[in-house]
Amino acid sequence: MSIADDVILSLDAVDTLARRVLTHHGMSDANARAIAGVIAQGQRDECHSHGLYRLIVCVRSLRSGRVDPRAVPTLRRVAGSVIEADAHGGYSLPAFELGLPALVEAAREQGLAALTIRHCHHFSALWPEVEAIAAHGLAGIAMCPSHAWVAPAGGRRPVFGTNPIAFAWPRPDGQPPYVFDFATSAIARGDIELHARQNRSIPDDWALDEAGRPTTDPHAALRGAMRTFGGHKGSALSTMVELMAGALIGDLTSAESLEYDGGAGASPYHGELLLAFDPEVFAGDACEAGRASGERVLREIAAQGARLPSQRRFTARARSLEHGVKVPRALYEEILALLD
Amino acid sequence: MSIADDVILSLDAVDTLARRVLTHHGMSDANARAIAGVIAQGQRDECHSHGLYRLIVCVRSLRSGRVDPRAVPTLRRVAGSVIEADAHGGYSLPAFELGLPALVEAAREQGLAALTIRHCHHFSALWPEVEAIAAHGLAGIAMCPSHAWVAPAGGRRPVFGTNPIAFAWPRPDGQPPYVFDFATSAIARGDIELHARQNRSIPDDWALDEAGRPTTDPHAALRGAMRTFGGHKGSALSTMVELMAGALIGDLTSAESLEYDGGAGASPYHGELLLAFDPEVFAGDACEAGRASGERVLREIAAQGARLPSQRRFTARARSLEHGVKVPRALYEEILALLD
Repeated sequence: MSIADDVILSLDAVDTLARRVLTHHGMSDANARAIAGVIAQGQRDECHSHGLYRLIVCVRSLRSGRVDPRAVPTLRRVAGSVIEADAHGGYSLPAFELGLPALVEAAREQGLAALTIRHCHHFSALWPEVEAIAAHGLAGIAMCPSHAWVAPAGGRRPVFGTNPIAFAWPRPDGQPPYVFDFATSAIARGDIELHARQNRSIPDDWALDEAGRPTTDPHAALRGAMRTFGGHKGSALSTMVELMAGALIGDLTSAESLEYDGGAGASPYHGELLLAFDPEVFAGDACEAGRASGERVLREIAAQGARLPSQRRFTARARSLEHGVKVPRALYEEILALLD
Repeated sequence: MSIADDVILSLDAVDTLARRVLTHHGMSDANARAIAGVIAQGQRDECHSHGLYRLIVCVRSLRSGRVDPRAVPTLRRVAGSVIEADAHGGYSLPAFELGLPALVEAAREQGLAALTIRHCHHFSALWPEVEAIAAHGLAGIAMCPSHAWVAPAGGRRPVFGTNPIAFAWPRPDGQPPYVFDFATSAIARGDIELHARQNRSIPDDWALDEAGRPTTDPHAALRGAMRTFGGHKGSALSTMVELMAGALIGDLTSAESLEYDGGAGASPYHGELLLAFDPEVFAGDACEAGRASGERVLREIAAQGARLPSQRRFTARARSLEHGVKVPRALYEEILALLD
């Protein structure tokens, strides 16, 4: 530990701390292991809102009684290419871990396959999941609704969640995969909340006030509606997420998730859709040539100084693996207090 | 026919005219039928750049000798959920028509399935294809590269094509499906070409000049690079299209398509990826509830005055089905001249 304002922790220590906090609040060992794993990954990649900080949010959800901390997910093969993991009211992550091997096997056998996660509480980024798919040499896509906070382009009232879409493509020679994971809202809700806490104005393309007018007041934005990224195109993608990761799989849309929450402020409760594609099946003999074509695209992007998405995370990851992670002392102490 | 500047044609007449022009230029009857069909759909929906006007572009491609007008597509089931249609150097559309029944059957059997179209010349919008999938009660996604005209966010040189993504979701009670089909570039290349012909300046977020600076000069834009929509998020989606509809299926990326063209100015030559999802398999007993949830999302968007994508097309479609289509006389005569 440093004597300064930061505490230095190994990744193992982050993982152990997260597990202790979660089991202390009644979570089963198996569930705590899955959730501590992604919290450690978030801290490692310096995605601070998905790192140890997230424990505070998790504990609040657990205390609300909305999330079943001891839920045991179950798995069912719905059809040749569709696997359904039911989280039974627990967090999505143990259900994802349970379903991943079956998803990988089905994708290799059928060329592509889907894993749906049903009845789950959701608080995590999607990149750990699509990266886990890519680690098996498969391309992965993931999407899910959240709570209805975002207005459609041309509208004024919330319909969509922040509705993230994530994608990963495996790269050869031990390189990290090509990965993106972004909200279809103009910005994360947490960014507006942060501005509100600091009483700082926001850009006028982030949100609308309750009357449907663009606003720079973060408080008005939180009472009103967030906007989608990229105008009507982002709005169309966000609609697709509601339909594919809500209606298609027979689980809740963002509006239904918010209604279900009933003001409890727990994590959104809904489903998730994951897809996996096997390049060896799709391209057959052309697989190596295809891989090389993909590498040329990615190298040409990087060669002109355009950053690949997730590059910052991978740089942070290398640093954390070597030196451990820095945690602000105040946050560290707040987390230790959760063990009281 | 009117005596004014427009010619009124029935949809049958549009279809017949398109077939005559295509067969006159050496296309096989089967291929001409498929292509005339989508040209008539484009004219019907008042997507004028994909209507009869497209015949002029097709004839230019046929004259260039790059497109095989008599190609006979073949079909192969690569795996349980992957069907490959090889266009053998012809247009994509006859290969899509050949593959659609197998895609639908595989999706119903496996829950989801992919149709890849290989070795095709491509000039058409993707909405006729995803609408055809939705007409079978399935959700459809389609994407393809084009020619490398678009720079990545933060870059300066073309890497991506205009890389469209299309999606359709079937709606009950005879309603048209929810459909979007958009380029991941900020704007269609044709819009910049139109501004160049008219010597009108373009907004500064459409394109970069050869030095990589934002430009309002359409001529500089055509020599430079177009930009993606939605900043780094649109850029990430465009990368996904290169990887999924190029590298994954072992076909050409947009850079490779442009290189293959070698300045001939023919239609892009590459592959296409289509996905179909069966809601009855995915949601099972929850299918009706899912459908109802989807309808609530779509109705709430429309209820607040936000237009659903494709709404303008569906309005035009209803008008055309009742009254026929209006074709500018100059265009009509230019097309008749193609029969000389």
